[in-house]
Amino acid sequence: MTNAQRKFLRSFQQKKVRKQENCFLIEGAKITTETLKATNSDYKIKQLFITQEFLDSLKKQNVLNDKVSGSDTDFEIILSTPRQLSEAGSLKSNNAAIAVVEIPFLTVPKKLESLALLLENINDPGNLGTIIRIADWYGIADIFCSEQTVDLYNSKTLSSTMGSFLRVRVHYGNEFDFLKLAEGNTFGAFLDGKNVHQTKFPQKGILVIGSESHGISEKLGKEILNKVTIPSFAPKNKENAESLNAAVATAIICDNWRRN
Amino acid sequence: MTNAQRKFLRSFQQKKVRKQENCFLIEGAKITTETLKATNSDYKIKQLFITQEFLDSLKKQNVLNDKVSGSDTDFEIILSTPRQLSEAGSLKSNNAAIAVVEIPFLTVPKKLESLALLLENINDPGNLGTIIRIADWYGIADIFCSEQTVDLYNSKTLSSTMGSFLRVRVHYGNEFDFLKLAEGNTFGAFLDGKNVHQTKFPQKGILVIGSESHGISEKLGKEILNKVTIPSFAPKNKENAESLNAAVATAIICDNWRRN
Repeated sequence: MTNAQRKFLRSFQQKKVRKQENCFLIEGAKITTETLKATNSDYKIKQLFITQEFLDSLKKQNVLNDKVSGSDTDFEIILSTPRQLSEAGSLKSNNAAIAVVEIPFLTVPKKLESLALLLENINDPGNLGTIIRIADWYGIADIFCSEQTVDLYNSKTLSSTMGSFLRVRVHYGNEFDFLKLAEGNTFGAFLDGKNVHQTKFPQKGILVIGSESHGISEKLGKEILNKVTIPSFAPKNKENAESLNAAVATAIICDNWRRN
Repeated sequence: MTNAQRKFLRSFQQKKVRKQENCFLIEGAKITTETLKATNSDYKIKQLFITQEFLDSLKKQNVLNDKVSGSDTDFEIILSTPRQLSEAGSLKSNNAAIAVVEIPFLTVPKKLESLALLLENINDPGNLGTIIRIADWYGIADIFCSEQTVDLYNSKTLSSTMGSFLRVRVHYGNEFDFLKLAEGNTFGAFLDGKNVHQTKFPQKGILVIGSESHGISEKLGKEILNKVTIPSFAPKNKENAESLNAAVATAIICDNWRRN
């Protein structure tokens, strides 16, 4: 890895650079292996910075062809030391790889096939990543995000998806336009809605999750026909938790939706 | 605030210092107000570093007595600037307060009153904090933690509880001893257990959650009589999420437990 390459990789910590280059980074052994294995995924590797040791191990596992050297893959392979990888990436220790991956162009579905999520201004990368992991578990193919929602290709978001970003499509755009796809099957988590334990959910629809600090905005809330609430079981006689974390609330509602 | 006081506050970022002093810090307006208001809580403030502006606002809200100056409270009040608070604490900006709070001595209950949680080596502070917030929501009074579980009084843990640490008792000790309190009503989250949607949960019992990377250890697993699993709804024909985040799994099982 040259100094220029190290600087190039470091610049990907800025969203603006990821947008300019239309690429982002994946880091570490597990997710690199998963991305290489996911042959029919939307994600294509353009450059692979890798240690000799990890390259050998991928060849041994048949994840990469035995003869691979750079000329017989459709991406460039650049041998690197663990130290170079740590310096160029966001992981403190990385003795495996950093891959430069192209940001795919995703088509917004014209019709819903199943349950989908709409995130309004979620701003914590860990929450977004965890929500993507939850979506993967509950068979949710599409997540719609308002433009103000934190970036999927942020390294913290990606790492908290635990690889689920490879299997869930995340779309950014206008939240009101996205909501129309639900054709009235719109559900949102509010503090004063109907008990989720007593709600009959349809097969298809959109569940809206508001931001961590403000919940669903008044304007978007007006477009949501079904307000649901996760009941609290705290003793009534004392102060108690005001709310649940956004990712936690998403998971509980998805679990209630899918068990129907 | 003197330089010595600033250094003293900074030293609380180390667990060893918190243990020696038997104290920890709470930071920021919201949690300081909540702690001051929670008159029957286990937590007692020993020193309050506070800006004049925030002190005035607490007096206006009647959270602190109008005449308070330090001599008529049972804790010391030290006027500080926002800059001093930011430098002494872990919050980038803090224009309100830092309180030094005594670590309470909690008695382990002799019998379970309700549902309790047992955490085996949870090591992410955000996960522990989120689990405490979930416990508060679901009316869980006690969380038992193995000694290797991350510290409650870590600033990241505290901040992700969103104040719920004031209402949930967190005990550290031997996980096998804690498990005996369940008198056989032991439940654990595993990947090959019984579907939680079809599980009848008792009124009292202990739910065991394993560490983020290893799940429940083999040794502790042998003592758990009811293995439960959160069903995945991902399409069977493709690779999918291997697991859910530990806090997310806790929330889903608590929701299933309480709806029974």
